[in-house]
Amino acid sequence: MAKTGSTAAETAETMAQRQREISVSEFFLKNRHLLGFDSPRRALLTAVKEAVDNALDACEEARILPEIAVDVAQTSPARFRVEVTDNGPGIVRAQIPKIFAKLLYGSKFHRLRMSRGQQGIGISAAGMYGQLTTGQSTRILSRTAKSKAAHSMEVQIDTRANKPVILRDEETGWAPAFPNPDKPADPPVPAGHGTSVSIEMEAAYVRGRLSVDEFLQQCAIVNPHLQLHYRVTLLAKEEKDQQPTSNNQQPTTNSQQPTAHGGGGGTWQTYRRAVKELPPPPGEIQPHPHGVELGVLMQMLKDTSSRTLRGALATDFSRVSDRTALEICTRAGLEPKANPTRIAHRESEALFKAIAETKLMRPPTDCLSPIGEAAIVAGLKKEIQADFYTAITRDPAVYRGNPFVIEAGLACSKPGENEEQAADDPVRVLRFANRVPLLYQAGACAVTKAVTGVNWKAYGLSQPKGALPVGPVVLMLHMASVWVPFTSESKDAIASYAEILREATFALQECGRRLSVFLSRRHREAEAMRKRDYIQLYIPHLALGLKGVLGLSDREEADVKRRLAKMLERTHLDL
Amino acid sequence: MAKTGSTAAETAETMAQRQREISVSEFFLKNRHLLGFDSPRRALLTAVKEAVDNALDACEEARILPEIAVDVAQTSPARFRVEVTDNGPGIVRAQIPKIFAKLLYGSKFHRLRMSRGQQGIGISAAGMYGQLTTGQSTRILSRTAKSKAAHSMEVQIDTRANKPVILRDEETGWAPAFPNPDKPADPPVPAGHGTSVSIEMEAAYVRGRLSVDEFLQQCAIVNPHLQLHYRVTLLAKEEKDQQPTSNNQQPTTNSQQPTAHGGGGGTWQTYRRAVKELPPPPGEIQPHPHGVELGVLMQMLKDTSSRTLRGALATDFSRVSDRTALEICTRAGLEPKANPTRIAHRESEALFKAIAETKLMRPPTDCLSPIGEAAIVAGLKKEIQADFYTAITRDPAVYRGNPFVIEAGLACSKPGENEEQAADDPVRVLRFANRVPLLYQAGACAVTKAVTGVNWKAYGLSQPKGALPVGPVVLMLHMASVWVPFTSESKDAIASYAEILREATFALQECGRRLSVFLSRRHREAEAMRKRDYIQLYIPHLALGLKGVLGLSDREEADVKRRLAKMLERTHLDL
Repeated sequence: MAKTGSTAAETAETMAQRQREISVSEFFLKNRHLLGFDSPRRALLTAVKEAVDNALDACEEARILPEIAVDVAQTSPARFRVEVTDNGPGIVRAQIPKIFAKLLYGSKFHRLRMSRGQQGIGISAAGMYGQLTTGQSTRILSRTAKSKAAHSMEVQIDTRANKPVILRDEETGWAPAFPNPDKPADPPVPAGHGTSVSIEMEAAYVRGRLSVDEFLQQCAIVNPHLQLHYRVTLLAKEEKDQQPTSNNQQPTTNSQQPTAHGGGGGTWQTYRRAVKELPPPPGEIQPHPHGVELGVLMQMLKDTSSRTLRGALATDFSRVSDRTALEICTRAGLEPKANPTRIAHRESEALFKAIAETKLMRPPTDCLSPIGEAAIVAGLKKEIQADFYTAITRDPAVYRGNPFVIEAGLACSKPGENEEQAADDPVRVLRFANRVPLLYQAGACAVTKAVTGVNWKAYGLSQPKGALPVGPVVLMLHMASVWVPFTSESKDAIASYAEILREATFALQECGRRLSVFLSRRHREAEAMRKRDYIQLYIPHLALGLKGVLGLSDREEADVKRRLAKMLERTHLDL
Repeated sequence: MAKTGSTAAETAETMAQRQREISVSEFFLKNRHLLGFDSPRRALLTAVKEAVDNALDACEEARILPEIAVDVAQTSPARFRVEVTDNGPGIVRAQIPKIFAKLLYGSKFHRLRMSRGQQGIGISAAGMYGQLTTGQSTRILSRTAKSKAAHSMEVQIDTRANKPVILRDEETGWAPAFPNPDKPADPPVPAGHGTSVSIEMEAAYVRGRLSVDEFLQQCAIVNPHLQLHYRVTLLAKEEKDQQPTSNNQQPTTNSQQPTAHGGGGGTWQTYRRAVKELPPPPGEIQPHPHGVELGVLMQMLKDTSSRTLRGALATDFSRVSDRTALEICTRAGLEPKANPTRIAHRESEALFKAIAETKLMRPPTDCLSPIGEAAIVAGLKKEIQADFYTAITRDPAVYRGNPFVIEAGLACSKPGENEEQAADDPVRVLRFANRVPLLYQAGACAVTKAVTGVNWKAYGLSQPKGALPVGPVVLMLHMASVWVPFTSESKDAIASYAEILREATFALQECGRRLSVFLSRRHREAEAMRKRDYIQLYIPHLALGLKGVLGLSDREEADVKRRLAKMLERTHLDL
């Protein structure tokens, strides 16, 4: 029986009756693809990614060298339990329910500081997806110090109200521990403090491109200070097809291969920490006046704790000294001691104009922590066997007042030497934002747009019109910023702001120029080698001829051959 | 002076202090690119699109033949005022503030019915962007009937609370009127009722691809029941460069060209209504049990107004008769008279499993209103001069319980005849969702993915690996659904659900097969023509030879020539 609703003509009055508010959880529940949960395969990756991002951020903020264990276990043919454990600072009990079961809640949104998380959506979204597909709660275990009690909680999200519902809340013992790759037979080493989150969800585990494996591998490469343990346990009948066997699925050139070691369930693999230092702590900055829109300026004047306009300008913005604040007031024709709230309502436009006309230093950029050229080349060496590597870290730039840095790397193999990539395959593009690998939504990403927009033919690669260049090349691009503009809440692709596109293009072009120099030399050398081989064929005949003409002895003939070959060697580079 | 925040190590306690809620408006203000407001150019298009979508939806729901005027006027070098007026049912006064100044508020989210708007975000987002960039309010004028008073309002959005702030609220006279393309000198014709919304924003007007012009033109093509007036007024010094002059920017084959006519400011252009009937009203449907996730099932059981499980199943879902409801209960081992709320908490999983195992009719599909094959071909004919057109409307399919229909069209020109597209350009892809043209984010769209995934070489087009095919071809794809899954809130690209990709691929392959038949015939004919031309060269010589050999008169020679040519004509098709 089809129950099709009324199709009678509506009026303004009947329509008004149907208008209502939509809770943000309802919105994302219906649009779960926006959060990266559109397929079981992607869902698994997204959940792991959100949990690992949070763990890394927490460890780095607390200045703790991160150690993370990712445990993925199949519970029924279409279900997995994802458990991610870190050695971070832990979470105080009162915050746990909101952090894990309320969308748009967090500490990173209202500040300008480089971090992996930004939105206060990710991990709650993963929990909501688990709840949606399995009815199960998110389980959290956290301890803030060895001396403190551990808290164990189970939470769900009330999607109508976007509020957490607490199903269990106990002080418990502390179990989280990390496997020991050096002594795999030993019991795991307990973490002193940290957080463990566990979510059961409808999911699918697939290896290869766009997999959890690929994400974690790239994650280890761009976070060399991370010790990462990873295990996948599949139900018996799928073990044969899918279970990663110790080493053979890893790229052959990875000098820092994960170590496989035993334990219950599947086999733990460890990406060992390569450096013992944390990246420098990224600083938090104030908004730069030139990146602030009129509406935001008005809001900031209303919110300021300063009592004067001049004070508000000097305190709430970066690159505005007390003297510059005075200059702006004068230019706008406003009283420096005016009440900021009053200015917000009446004269914000004059102020906005005066700010735009005032010369200011560019935003501070020491708040960014790029990966660095050496580390990018090292990372590429793990990804691909090539005979040319290069990398560039651009100077910081600014979009909408947000400082950012673009870094690019390029590796080029000899044709035919790269097994993963045929000669007519598009180049492989690795994308990163604030040290997080981006796997999905490549087509929507500013990085792809920039790569496609560069004229690679000029640098010696073939390139179909409007498409990626073709060849045995891997490109890597990283954006580091206090605010990365993603094209959707799933944070898989960078939005195409003009400034970002421009910086990415410049970085790629520089890599392209270097590639072009290398390819020309390789071509020249191959050409010289060909000519030399060709001439070398004639040396014995020449020597024999000279021997006959000049009546040389066998020893003299051999000497002539030797000297001709030597001459050839000396000159072949100039051929 | 750089005011970089503290970079001291955090603890769980210091981190807890910074945790807070993020309002949905704050979130989208900072992420305005998610809503389609990342560049001034795109902002103008997005604002027009949101207003036109709403106007069309309102008219169709009220069963009014839509007439819409889009008036874009430059107010300063970087600012425009966008005013969109419709003859729809109007909006009751109490609803105006929330509809135009509150994100996630609307009538379309909580139902399954084919419409352009879905989310309750679009027009409020446009207003919020205007407010952000110019500090100006959104102005609304609405009247629900000739006999009623008109309401004029100015609203802003309090982004901290995601609530409307009313700045003006008056009963006023009624001004909205539409220009008369038949009598351009006459005063405009007043609309009896409807809504007019006006937003001033930072924007840029650019013609060509991805422009307001392109959007409105495509909009008129897929909505032939729409009478659409459009005007752009630029400031004097830019007039020369940008002002569209009456006809020459229109595609030459558009038989339904907009008529340009006078009036104050710029010149109005009208896309005339081509058909006088509204599309059939799309019906509203209930969720189909097979598309409902466990979490949603639980929520529905909690929310139902039925007192028994059996009643809830039969009432709240489509394709569940009373008898089927009983069957499901029996299979799940549940009492048909059980309280649905109790089932939700305890036994929903058994119920979920029983539903999955019960055979059900597919969701009703009469709720969809596709464009239709004839209309698609007619639309393509307006877009491109070609010698081959085809279109296909697939049977309805289902993703996540939502019925949808995919339609595809293809037009192929002779190489060199299509001025807009060079022989080595990728094919042009026109994308539509629920009759709305999608212009941005092509790279993120399931449509692009489907086009790229089809093996076009098999159908006679060249195609670089992993890229769009190449050639003088225009492809058109339309998805009609009770819920279109977009990849972001700006609704520019369709998410790649497997079922959608599959349907799009099948539709494209069918177009490809037809194209291949056409191209083979064209090739065969060209080949035959070439041979015929070749033989024709010899006819005079042959006739002359025969004349000599047989001693024919001049008249007989001419007769032989004529008869040889005739024979050739008769047989050339079999060559």
